[in-house]
Amino acid sequence: MRLFVKSILCTLTVAIIAGAAYAQFSKPGDAIRYRKAVMTLIVHDFKQMGAVVQGKADYDRASFDEQAKLLHILSTLPWEAFMTPGSDKGDTGLKSSALQNKSAFMQAAKSFENATRDLMLAAAGGDLGPVKTEFGNVGASCGACHKQFRK
Amino acid sequence: MRLFVKSILCTLTVAIIAGAAYAQFSKPGDAIRYRKAVMTLIVHDFKQMGAVVQGKADYDRASFDEQAKLLHILSTLPWEAFMTPGSDKGDTGLKSSALQNKSAFMQAAKSFENATRDLMLAAAGGDLGPVKTEFGNVGASCGACHKQFRK
Repeated sequence: MRLFVKSILCTLTVAIIAGAAYAQFSKPGDAIRYRKAVMTLIVHDFKQMGAVVQGKADYDRASFDEQAKLLHILSTLPWEAFMTPGSDKGDTGLKSSALQNKSAFMQAAKSFENATRDLMLAAAGGDLGPVKTEFGNVGASCGACHKQFRK
Repeated sequence: MRLFVKSILCTLTVAIIAGAAYAQFSKPGDAIRYRKAVMTLIVHDFKQMGAVVQGKADYDRASFDEQAKLLHILSTLPWEAFMTPGSDKGDTGLKSSALQNKSAFMQAAKSFENATRDLMLAAAGGDLGPVKTEFGNVGASCGACHKQFRK
């Protein structure tokens, strides 16, 4: 038996909001745990989709569509946690250069969000051709950010 | 600076799908890591909302609405991972009784999903009175499941 979100019909607008009323993370360790949790879910979801893209699992349009929407939602969540001061120390693979060059990091983050949005839109179209292209772009976006900012 | 989902306008239908084409978790350890990650995000989101409900943080209707929607989406994710055979052993607080009595566990899971859905709907209404009631119900639902199924 499997429980999952059957239908998420979302209009998503991702925005950078300056000057939030309160910070999400008062301790670097909390930020590290949070972003690791988000990444665990992203990797899981992406692997599930990858099995379909690679032909190792059946393509169920509705399920794949859900996974793509979830991936996009997840892709918007971890960035403040990555930018939390002091969170380049401790149980993390984050390079200090990410905190020293926040605009470059956030540009990479935004690129990833855009890639997952495009994959979500392709998945909604139901054609595996464009899906494979956008899936590859998401993977490339992961890799580019990791190469630059992960130890 | 804070990055978050500015607007998620979602119609959510949560359904139990029997007989998925492929299982999400082939190893108990993967299921444990996944559900712990989901719970980390749930706790974080719920605490953020709790600060508002308790008057420790300002009530920003749009942000609170987003957090409530995210909480509901997250509340639908971890149950297959909890029901993965063998995942009551190892780095987990899950009681074996959860796997021995899946219908009771899934009933508790569904109760939690329903509570987060009601909180999401209350948050969309923008009135902190009903929000506080539903927030309390979500907390009670957490506690009831933990009491029954957590070591």
